[in-house]
Amino acid sequence: MISKRIEKAMQGNSAIRAMFIEGKEMAEKYGAEHVFDFSLGNPATPVPAAVNERIKALTEESDSMSLHGYMENAGYPAVRGAIAKNLNERFGTAFDYHNVTMTVGAAGGLNIVLKTILDPGDEVIVFAPFFGEYRQYAANFDANVVAVNPDYETFLPDMGDLEEKISNKTKAVLVNTPNNPTGVIYKSDTMKEIAAVLKKKQREIGHEIYLISDEPYRELVYDGNREDFLTKYYENTIVVYSFSKSLSLPGERIGYVLVPDEAADSELLLRGIEISNRTLGFVNAPSLMQKAVAGCLDEKTDTDFYDENRRALYEELTKLGFCCIRPEGAFYLWMKAPIDEEEFVNAGKKHHILMVKGSAFGCPGYVRLSYCVSHETVKHSLPAFARLAEETL
Amino acid sequence: MISKRIEKAMQGNSAIRAMFIEGKEMAEKYGAEHVFDFSLGNPATPVPAAVNERIKALTEESDSMSLHGYMENAGYPAVRGAIAKNLNERFGTAFDYHNVTMTVGAAGGLNIVLKTILDPGDEVIVFAPFFGEYRQYAANFDANVVAVNPDYETFLPDMGDLEEKISNKTKAVLVNTPNNPTGVIYKSDTMKEIAAVLKKKQREIGHEIYLISDEPYRELVYDGNREDFLTKYYENTIVVYSFSKSLSLPGERIGYVLVPDEAADSELLLRGIEISNRTLGFVNAPSLMQKAVAGCLDEKTDTDFYDENRRALYEELTKLGFCCIRPEGAFYLWMKAPIDEEEFVNAGKKHHILMVKGSAFGCPGYVRLSYCVSHETVKHSLPAFARLAEETL
Repeated sequence: MISKRIEKAMQGNSAIRAMFIEGKEMAEKYGAEHVFDFSLGNPATPVPAAVNERIKALTEESDSMSLHGYMENAGYPAVRGAIAKNLNERFGTAFDYHNVTMTVGAAGGLNIVLKTILDPGDEVIVFAPFFGEYRQYAANFDANVVAVNPDYETFLPDMGDLEEKISNKTKAVLVNTPNNPTGVIYKSDTMKEIAAVLKKKQREIGHEIYLISDEPYRELVYDGNREDFLTKYYENTIVVYSFSKSLSLPGERIGYVLVPDEAADSELLLRGIEISNRTLGFVNAPSLMQKAVAGCLDEKTDTDFYDENRRALYEELTKLGFCCIRPEGAFYLWMKAPIDEEEFVNAGKKHHILMVKGSAFGCPGYVRLSYCVSHETVKHSLPAFARLAEETL
Repeated sequence: MISKRIEKAMQGNSAIRAMFIEGKEMAEKYGAEHVFDFSLGNPATPVPAAVNERIKALTEESDSMSLHGYMENAGYPAVRGAIAKNLNERFGTAFDYHNVTMTVGAAGGLNIVLKTILDPGDEVIVFAPFFGEYRQYAANFDANVVAVNPDYETFLPDMGDLEEKISNKTKAVLVNTPNNPTGVIYKSDTMKEIAAVLKKKQREIGHEIYLISDEPYRELVYDGNREDFLTKYYENTIVVYSFSKSLSLPGERIGYVLVPDEAADSELLLRGIEISNRTLGFVNAPSLMQKAVAGCLDEKTDTDFYDENRRALYEELTKLGFCCIRPEGAFYLWMKAPIDEEEFVNAGKKHHILMVKGSAFGCPGYVRLSYCVSHETVKHSLPAFARLAEETL
């Protein structure tokens, strides 16, 4: 009595989520301090105190019916306006409230954008390695993802392969920088190259291609790298954002979609996104959280915390002889599996180290370590990694 | 560049939502006190004080990372357990946490249930008049709704027509009691009749049929009617609930899906629903709100408030000569349009009365009045209705 699509999804269910359950079970069995769970991107830095203060103030100041009631499906105009203003101040843009639609996190945002633009059989280009759920999101609308190979030195996109993979079925290209799972940032030069390819191919195939920027890690950048906003590189850019990482609120499901006026069919896109928000069942982003984040747009999570984990892990694992891509942003470390990735992940588990295999990101032969864990977890994991190195290198 | 499905949806966009915007515009133009907006089901009773108290206490007592962080996609086990226990106490059932999945409202719940069970071309039976969005929800999964006619005296389902409309394509029957838009309650006898038809037809067509009970209005019952829980009538019943109306929290998007163990393939259903929650982009129900409602399960909204509106409106409109179905639950009044429904709705607007036409619910020739408005709005609307009666009766 289960649909065929869900039967299929059950077989290939999220490796990351399965690991999340396994990690909790191991923690119960061996004690949390003896399990080194690098599997899930659950933020490890405190929610800025201002967020809970704002929530409390809202419950005291506001009329409860308007605080918890329906609003336009796109969200409160005042909240959307505050976000537009904040972006304009930070990035020199010129948005206003009508460019912004509040969403149930970035996952909700991606789904309503894809529902708005995809017809059955359409293709969405993704850059390997990529967040595995993109495959499901495209499949929700009977479309397919087409993966572009990385340059295996830098884990930036192979531009030749991008050019080859774009066809007249290509409706969108999905970019995620700072990247999950590699931690690599697509900097200005890379974005210009992607834009140049897209502009050229748009002319060739005779229709526009949207660049969808999935940017939950926008603010998590290290080594003096600066936050970037991608609409300036390419006019058909749609930004999908989540406050999950920047304010450590992943359970609250709050984010937004931004469509600039210069994007092709921008008015239709905005209307379609609002309708999709309603008809896919989101209806609107959670109301209290909309108002809470609007009052905390200048708050930041403690990136120094992640940076300390990043440096420790990268330096120690490299010293042990593992081959790692140096992360520049997000909170992931991408490491080559010295043996078969499946065997390597299993060998890790024997030492209570939980890692996610690269094939979950369309890129076998690697593993992802999520370093949103305590400093103690990193420190205590190092002897276990040393034993893993002895066994597998 | 917009998908064909969304293009089509734009043409038939929600009449109710369009009215919501129109109502706001009229309120700005004429002053809110001179507009009688009976169009939207936005609760008009205060949020119980305990809800905001609970929210404040949670922000003070809880570790903020666990309060706002990821949990299982099905929701916090403790929250799900508290809901199961509360249902067991009220309805003599025997559920536990594993039967309950927390959702982004009832709209999110319906979509993940439908995604779990529907293959392209499948049919979902609905009872006219019905909430128009059901059509979109089925279409999200390439399935169709098939409407069963009402008995036009009682607005209960025509059981003969139900039997006729069930085919081997029927995967589910969707029931909504207390009903939107009629306010009618499907009482014990009606539920037993529906169950008998479904049991008979299951045998005939050779596969199970799920009864999906969409029950956001469960607690809004009047005239001594009692809350009911439908799993006792038919074993393949899936309950979809929202706290939107019972706690006046529609903007917060918090509800749940309940699958009893006796439902066919219950374990697969539960897993499929959890996967669908993730892959459709909900990921999980908002975390703070999960914990807030779990602490307020015995709280109730002020049904006396709605009852006063219900009585006033029903009595006065009937006295004026309009033909109304006496509402027993929810907060809607269903009224026969004395002239063409479109003309009648437009005539209403001239007197600043906003009503939704019956064809938005698959039942032309009627209008829905939502009486979740202030007592003053009801009172001040009565002279306008009198003028409308003079013009149209």
